[in-house]
Amino acid sequence: MRIANRWRTHHCAQLRATDVGRKVRLCGWVDRRRDHGGLVFVDLRDREGVSQIVFHPEEYFEAAEIGKALHAEDLIQVEGLVARRPEGTENEGLATGEIEVVAQSVRLLNACLPLPFPLDAVVENEELRLAFRFLDLRRRRMLENLRLRHRITRAVRDYLDARGFLEVETPILSKSTPEGARDFLVPSRLAPGSFYALPQAPQQYKQLLMVSGIERYYQIARCFRDEDLRADRQPEFTQVDLEASFAEPEDIQSWVEGALEKVFREVVGTDLSLPFPRMSYREAMDRYGSDKPDLRFGIDLYDVGEIFRGSDLKVFRAVLDAGGVVKAVNGKGLARIGAAELAALEEIARGLGGKGLAYIRVESSGWKSPIGKFLTPGERDALALALGATEGDLLLFAADQWQLACEILGRIRLRLADLSGEPKEHSEWKFLWVTDFPLFAFDREEGRWESMHHPFTRPRSEDLPLLEEGRYGEVRALAYDIVLNGTELGGGSIRIHEAELQQKIFSILGIDSETQEQRFGHLLKAFRYGAPPHGGVALGLDRLAMLLAGAESIRDVIAFPKNRHGVDPLTGSPAEVDAKQLRELRIAISGRGNA
Amino acid sequence: MRIANRWRTHHCAQLRATDVGRKVRLCGWVDRRRDHGGLVFVDLRDREGVSQIVFHPEEYFEAAEIGKALHAEDLIQVEGLVARRPEGTENEGLATGEIEVVAQSVRLLNACLPLPFPLDAVVENEELRLAFRFLDLRRRRMLENLRLRHRITRAVRDYLDARGFLEVETPILSKSTPEGARDFLVPSRLAPGSFYALPQAPQQYKQLLMVSGIERYYQIARCFRDEDLRADRQPEFTQVDLEASFAEPEDIQSWVEGALEKVFREVVGTDLSLPFPRMSYREAMDRYGSDKPDLRFGIDLYDVGEIFRGSDLKVFRAVLDAGGVVKAVNGKGLARIGAAELAALEEIARGLGGKGLAYIRVESSGWKSPIGKFLTPGERDALALALGATEGDLLLFAADQWQLACEILGRIRLRLADLSGEPKEHSEWKFLWVTDFPLFAFDREEGRWESMHHPFTRPRSEDLPLLEEGRYGEVRALAYDIVLNGTELGGGSIRIHEAELQQKIFSILGIDSETQEQRFGHLLKAFRYGAPPHGGVALGLDRLAMLLAGAESIRDVIAFPKNRHGVDPLTGSPAEVDAKQLRELRIAISGRGNA
Repeated sequence: MRIANRWRTHHCAQLRATDVGRKVRLCGWVDRRRDHGGLVFVDLRDREGVSQIVFHPEEYFEAAEIGKALHAEDLIQVEGLVARRPEGTENEGLATGEIEVVAQSVRLLNACLPLPFPLDAVVENEELRLAFRFLDLRRRRMLENLRLRHRITRAVRDYLDARGFLEVETPILSKSTPEGARDFLVPSRLAPGSFYALPQAPQQYKQLLMVSGIERYYQIARCFRDEDLRADRQPEFTQVDLEASFAEPEDIQSWVEGALEKVFREVVGTDLSLPFPRMSYREAMDRYGSDKPDLRFGIDLYDVGEIFRGSDLKVFRAVLDAGGVVKAVNGKGLARIGAAELAALEEIARGLGGKGLAYIRVESSGWKSPIGKFLTPGERDALALALGATEGDLLLFAADQWQLACEILGRIRLRLADLSGEPKEHSEWKFLWVTDFPLFAFDREEGRWESMHHPFTRPRSEDLPLLEEGRYGEVRALAYDIVLNGTELGGGSIRIHEAELQQKIFSILGIDSETQEQRFGHLLKAFRYGAPPHGGVALGLDRLAMLLAGAESIRDVIAFPKNRHGVDPLTGSPAEVDAKQLRELRIAISGRGNA
Repeated sequence: MRIANRWRTHHCAQLRATDVGRKVRLCGWVDRRRDHGGLVFVDLRDREGVSQIVFHPEEYFEAAEIGKALHAEDLIQVEGLVARRPEGTENEGLATGEIEVVAQSVRLLNACLPLPFPLDAVVENEELRLAFRFLDLRRRRMLENLRLRHRITRAVRDYLDARGFLEVETPILSKSTPEGARDFLVPSRLAPGSFYALPQAPQQYKQLLMVSGIERYYQIARCFRDEDLRADRQPEFTQVDLEASFAEPEDIQSWVEGALEKVFREVVGTDLSLPFPRMSYREAMDRYGSDKPDLRFGIDLYDVGEIFRGSDLKVFRAVLDAGGVVKAVNGKGLARIGAAELAALEEIARGLGGKGLAYIRVESSGWKSPIGKFLTPGERDALALALGATEGDLLLFAADQWQLACEILGRIRLRLADLSGEPKEHSEWKFLWVTDFPLFAFDREEGRWESMHHPFTRPRSEDLPLLEEGRYGEVRALAYDIVLNGTELGGGSIRIHEAELQQKIFSILGIDSETQEQRFGHLLKAFRYGAPPHGGVALGLDRLAMLLAGAESIRDVIAFPKNRHGVDPLTGSPAEVDAKQLRELRIAISGRGNA
């Protein structure tokens, strides 16, 4: 990296003992100032690192006067001589630790006001950090996060470029298709009353590119969702988006695996072992109660329905008779958790809509449980065997419809892992492909079928007869999600490429022909002109960067994120605009009363 | 590029004579079907190229039956044997020209409706092309354009990555700062009555990144301008955006030169000679009448004012006495252009606000000109010498204020180049840096000073006293534009990094303190925390790709462009949206009457 120009001869991490005696010029920020033995020392910091500057008032009076007056984060230019540090004062922890620069002249390039927060300590007030983002990003860790993100996209691009993928930019000013999440809208001035929408994903454009014969496309794509911002969502986010024609799920999965392998090797020096394990949605739910199971710990869910099929325990019997299931999980060594903890677990179950959570404390003095008295010795033995229960364990039961029972115990499982002190840090990387998702999920509130992924997802060929027979809930999709340590990193599918099948799916979703034409006419049209079979995947870049950075929030790997209210406290965006701007767009703000 | 899977064993440009006898499977589109000597031949095309498929009805009846029924752009999968083409039927122009594939079985994967336009011919109706963009992009040339664009960004990224530039994503949902062009607005649902704006450029964010100490930033950045769409503008466009701290104009120029050299070498195999020439704004206007002169031809403008200072020609004298200039250009060999052509030249002058265009036809029989009789023999000789006029030339004169006279003859110069048949194709690449732009331009209509580039541009240090003295028109900017063959490819500047100077500039531009705080408060604030000196540049990627592709329009290097009305005829965007969406955003469409 060439640095030298009028401003500086070196960057602050560049000088070594071999440079002693050299006259140099550095620019940087005052990282720390120390006064010691009548001398002023400054750690001068730039992007690359730190050099120690020492001010000798007897030799270089003017420089030393300026040095004395320096504050944290003042920006200075220093001219001086590289000197070896006095013996015993070297800093082995620093690349430049053997030398210091004796300041001959100093220029204060730009002073810094008193800092709103220290740059070398954790600051809990995130709102303040965002309001001074330009300072927050000066923290070494934040800079490293941005650098890491750069290296991730670089590695992904290198990998995909080498495999013939073309990066194609798709429009940001696109069309509203009110499926899924809420769109951000952009009023059109040239066509008053009309709106562009910001894309929730380049899904339809990338499919159109496949119809065009691009065959292999990718994009580091900005996506937008106007959702209420939960803990770690952003209104705009970035995904690694790819699509390929004549591709099988295995092709796409292996590209993702290869790209991630390269990213992990080059960015954090970790060798991943490929291929990642695969697990069907059904198995993931059955064993882990989640379609994004965290495999860093091994707590499994068991179906213990058979044991209770003839039981005296009426609540379990009733559920089983109604077609439900009884599932259980063993909290090893947790027999003695307090009543409050147990109540919290029950609250998880109820929060998801469950009727409750039965438990058994396996203690030396026997099984302590409200349901204990209903269990025969045979049932106890069978349970102990099924759950590997030994003294000190806490057994938890959910009896409900399969889906709900799985989900409840899936959440309980995560909590049990916390309680048992299972390692949750990301020192270990447990990837998993979850496959064979249901194509549809039934929305009970709305009383209609919905796409589990999106309406362009292809059903498995062998399940097409089920589609004909109206057994929609049983149709499996050619869809796959990639999960890392319990986080869904991305997902994809093989798509529908025939107009007729696509129309059939739309119809099942309750989209009538007119609406189909209006919203998706371009795609249906394209499918009639020799559209190739194709499929793809999208990975959440923010989330991947967050995990690799060991960050707590995706906001820590985004240069200028919005807060939980969708606001950027630095620029004050969103903001009111001039009345003239609204007039030109022919829109008006309606009162709260009208909403 | 690994291709083989269940769909195909090879791509269509892969097979060679060495593959003869091999059983292969190909997928692709019917590029052409020919019936010849009782056999059906199909040119099967995929992204990589073409293979000839031959159908033998006697050996493979079923396949041949399907082959006979194939239409253009049907998508098929062919299984067959690679065979050597009969002697004399090889096609040397084709990589696969020595072989053909004898179809043993064929599957029609997806049929194609009759094409709305031929894919192998020029189609003038661009609206139709856009409405069927998925077919339009199947043309070899359009695919190659997208591939070329991919390779340009790849080369730029490689170059900048190697020099320590970090790619940082800046927000698309940003803040409206109604300077310059019109913003696209995005109503906020969470903060009703407030709006995000789509960025016209990441200017302020990249400056904030410099304050953060990122030092070297770049982004292939999407930008948005809600302007009336002239011939070759798009509401969204892409720029190569970069910014660096502790950088001189020469540093930034040399990065741009280095990146372009790499792009031209790797993408079109052309070696550029570096550095590009530099020319001040003043000289560019004086010599070529343009701040983006086309240097592929050498027609120069001359100041001939001295010759007319004592002349009888009152119209010239009056202009000179009023502080104006008389400038001239020599249309070599154009003495005999017709009256209509001459009128068209005069129209150019008047269209720009000039009073007219004096001319002299230098003919063998003497100088033919309405102003001829006012010229003394001495003036004639002086003119002939100054303009290098010889028999057959057409001399054209503009007498006006310097700026306008230059602009008129600058436009005339381009027209003269056309008339003389000067080469205008892009076989020759004439780069130029134009430097030392004025910082301000006076807007006579509004009666106020405006930034020639933008308000963040830094004045030259030696011109700071002029700023103090209120001689705003004379202050030169540390700004530079890069020009290629008469097209402005991009521009940049060193920025202001001190709050006081920035406020001073804002004030000169008539932005009061309150408005400064409201619109640019975040930047002013940032400058007070040790902001480093910095500068940058932005290059228009669409335009660069267009020039390199030899395309007529930037729409030919954008996958899904909008038409001149800001509409995408394919998806029908922008479109009306559900009333519910507007209610949620608390906005209403105001009638045309209110506008």
